[in-house]
Amino acid sequence: MSHLFQLAKTCPKTGARAGVLTTPHGPVLTPAFIPVASQGTVKTLTPDELRSLGVEIVLGNTYHLYLRPGVEIIKQQGGLHRFMSWDGPLVTDSGGFQVFSLAHMSQITEDGVLFRSHLDGSEHFLTPELAIEIQEEFGADIIMPLDDCPPYSEDFQAMRQAMEQTHRWAERCQRRHRRQEQALFGIVQGGTFAQLRRQSVEFITSLDFPGYALGGLSVGEPKRLTYDTIAETAPFLPVDKPRYLMGVGSPEDLMECVARGMDLFDSALPTRIARNGTLLANEGRCNIRNACFKNWDRAIDQNCDCYTCQTFSAAYLHHLFKCEELLAYRLATIHNVRFITRLMAGIRRSILEDNFPSFNDAFLAGYQRTDEEVRTGQKRKWLERQRKRQLWQV
Amino acid sequence: MSHLFQLAKTCPKTGARAGVLTTPHGPVLTPAFIPVASQGTVKTLTPDELRSLGVEIVLGNTYHLYLRPGVEIIKQQGGLHRFMSWDGPLVTDSGGFQVFSLAHMSQITEDGVLFRSHLDGSEHFLTPELAIEIQEEFGADIIMPLDDCPPYSEDFQAMRQAMEQTHRWAERCQRRHRRQEQALFGIVQGGTFAQLRRQSVEFITSLDFPGYALGGLSVGEPKRLTYDTIAETAPFLPVDKPRYLMGVGSPEDLMECVARGMDLFDSALPTRIARNGTLLANEGRCNIRNACFKNWDRAIDQNCDCYTCQTFSAAYLHHLFKCEELLAYRLATIHNVRFITRLMAGIRRSILEDNFPSFNDAFLAGYQRTDEEVRTGQKRKWLERQRKRQLWQV
Repeated sequence: MSHLFQLAKTCPKTGARAGVLTTPHGPVLTPAFIPVASQGTVKTLTPDELRSLGVEIVLGNTYHLYLRPGVEIIKQQGGLHRFMSWDGPLVTDSGGFQVFSLAHMSQITEDGVLFRSHLDGSEHFLTPELAIEIQEEFGADIIMPLDDCPPYSEDFQAMRQAMEQTHRWAERCQRRHRRQEQALFGIVQGGTFAQLRRQSVEFITSLDFPGYALGGLSVGEPKRLTYDTIAETAPFLPVDKPRYLMGVGSPEDLMECVARGMDLFDSALPTRIARNGTLLANEGRCNIRNACFKNWDRAIDQNCDCYTCQTFSAAYLHHLFKCEELLAYRLATIHNVRFITRLMAGIRRSILEDNFPSFNDAFLAGYQRTDEEVRTGQKRKWLERQRKRQLWQV
Repeated sequence: MSHLFQLAKTCPKTGARAGVLTTPHGPVLTPAFIPVASQGTVKTLTPDELRSLGVEIVLGNTYHLYLRPGVEIIKQQGGLHRFMSWDGPLVTDSGGFQVFSLAHMSQITEDGVLFRSHLDGSEHFLTPELAIEIQEEFGADIIMPLDDCPPYSEDFQAMRQAMEQTHRWAERCQRRHRRQEQALFGIVQGGTFAQLRRQSVEFITSLDFPGYALGGLSVGEPKRLTYDTIAETAPFLPVDKPRYLMGVGSPEDLMECVARGMDLFDSALPTRIARNGTLLANEGRCNIRNACFKNWDRAIDQNCDCYTCQTFSAAYLHHLFKCEELLAYRLATIHNVRFITRLMAGIRRSILEDNFPSFNDAFLAGYQRTDEEVRTGQKRKWLERQRKRQLWQV
């Protein structure tokens, strides 16, 4: 078996776990953050830089890559690893999440999802089988089944239906899956209802996947509910399999969700906010566009060992952002990715050294969380923009 | 004397020269191309990358840096070298060229140039003295006097007046120049009139600068006239001083102008066309957006040792450009800069080995020049756009 998860240590006071995930393209020390290479590139960075920043695993978006450059090109170029020149561990998602959030007019039927490309309006039909076939051509180390992932809702019946759809699709994906060197994970749904999550865990684990993901979180629900749902779900997942929380990537969330027993995390957040000038530090987020940085002689984060902080002053970064220089987005991305890989490495070390709770407490005490209202407001705006775009473009 | 130009070899058949320019921040092997870091960054690249691409010297634009972040910030950050973290040889221009081409409502008087910032419409008055003072605060190794640099014109009297203005300003710049570790070059003007160029060389060299630049070329004139003007001017410049041709940077122009005795060249062309998807190769320019690259398995330029060509297929680059991924602009810039530094190194080697003429012939025979009509059409459009912007925004 080429995929193997070895649990090295579990925190006796929290649910935090340290382990090693072995893939055909090398090991991943967990807990691990997975930067998003939506279109086959972690925006602004080269594979060399990713490695030098301590990144061990990246995620490609099947929705984007299926539409452009398309499966044929990637297949003929020797698969996604070779296409993007990343020879480390690689995950692809099923495409479902972007179909629901980005594509136009997505319509779910028992058979799959009908949608229109956000690029050219062309019609496509994504089935569980097709999601697997595409991902088998891409050849990532970890692949995901098509799931029904609705935005946050308190409608129990709707969430139950989505969960059940997810279960039926999971079976179809598993049946179609051929390339056994790729690990097909199972996805647990059920919204923020503990009862549904338990039910989903029971069903999905009964299918015996080599790893399990929690889907349908960080989709607009209050943060408290995210944490609670994980706390109520993770303990029922098998201890000897990796646990992957999809769509989470802020420092405070990574902390909270590691503490609740999750091992892998992917999110575009650290890289997306970087391009907006928002830099991560132990004290919280700061925006480099702020006038206070205009003449700031020191690095943004004096504790940071990244190229950006070791080489440039905050004043220079501020200048680059003011000028909309392309280098700005890259230097900020370097810093944020490094901040997260250092954070994950620190978390892992603290688990192995048996002091995760105090590491966790110290970090969260010093870190100013992003205001819940601001955060949900931003999320709402983002969802509205997606929705408007659909109405307007279709 | 910290600035020194040592001529190592002159081609016996052409005017090509190989030498070494020594600056307080290190040596520059000539002939050399100087990439443009307009706003304190060679767009998309870090200083580390520049060095690894074989770049020995870069140029900052005084106009841009004076407007943003401003002289005070750069001064307080310890000068331009430190601000942009480039510890190699550095040139700044006087700001004049951008005032004429980019700013709004530039009005020349004997005293200087009145203009409005293209950023916020604020009014500024650039004098020869101010151009020197700003550049002394920036602290580059080579600095340039304010000159009167009109676009291409066949109006002899107008060109004579601009030349004479340039001469009077050159004297004022020299008089104001204090920091002797910075080499203030002289600029020769005179349009495409051989008579004026001779006159300008005579006057400017009489002031005894440590290096000489040809200004007012590559400003819309037919290419034949650029070459002829250089051929008629360079032989009258002192052999023991570096000769800098401003605004030239296409491979064929670099070849032609080295052959006519020039040593240093700066231009935004290689980096600007890179961001438009135009890549340089021994065969000529190619556009990576072209459909023929969609499934091209090999590197764009298989003879190239740059990171881009060594790491990625043309198909991947094509994909990145189609997706407007930020990494696209960077990878293309890496290639074009490396193409030019390799070209210059090859030129230099051939001069030292006494076979520049055959190197030159072989290169130009294999290289498809950019169509003159296309080129002047593009230049005209660019100038019109600049002009329209002025009319519209003021």
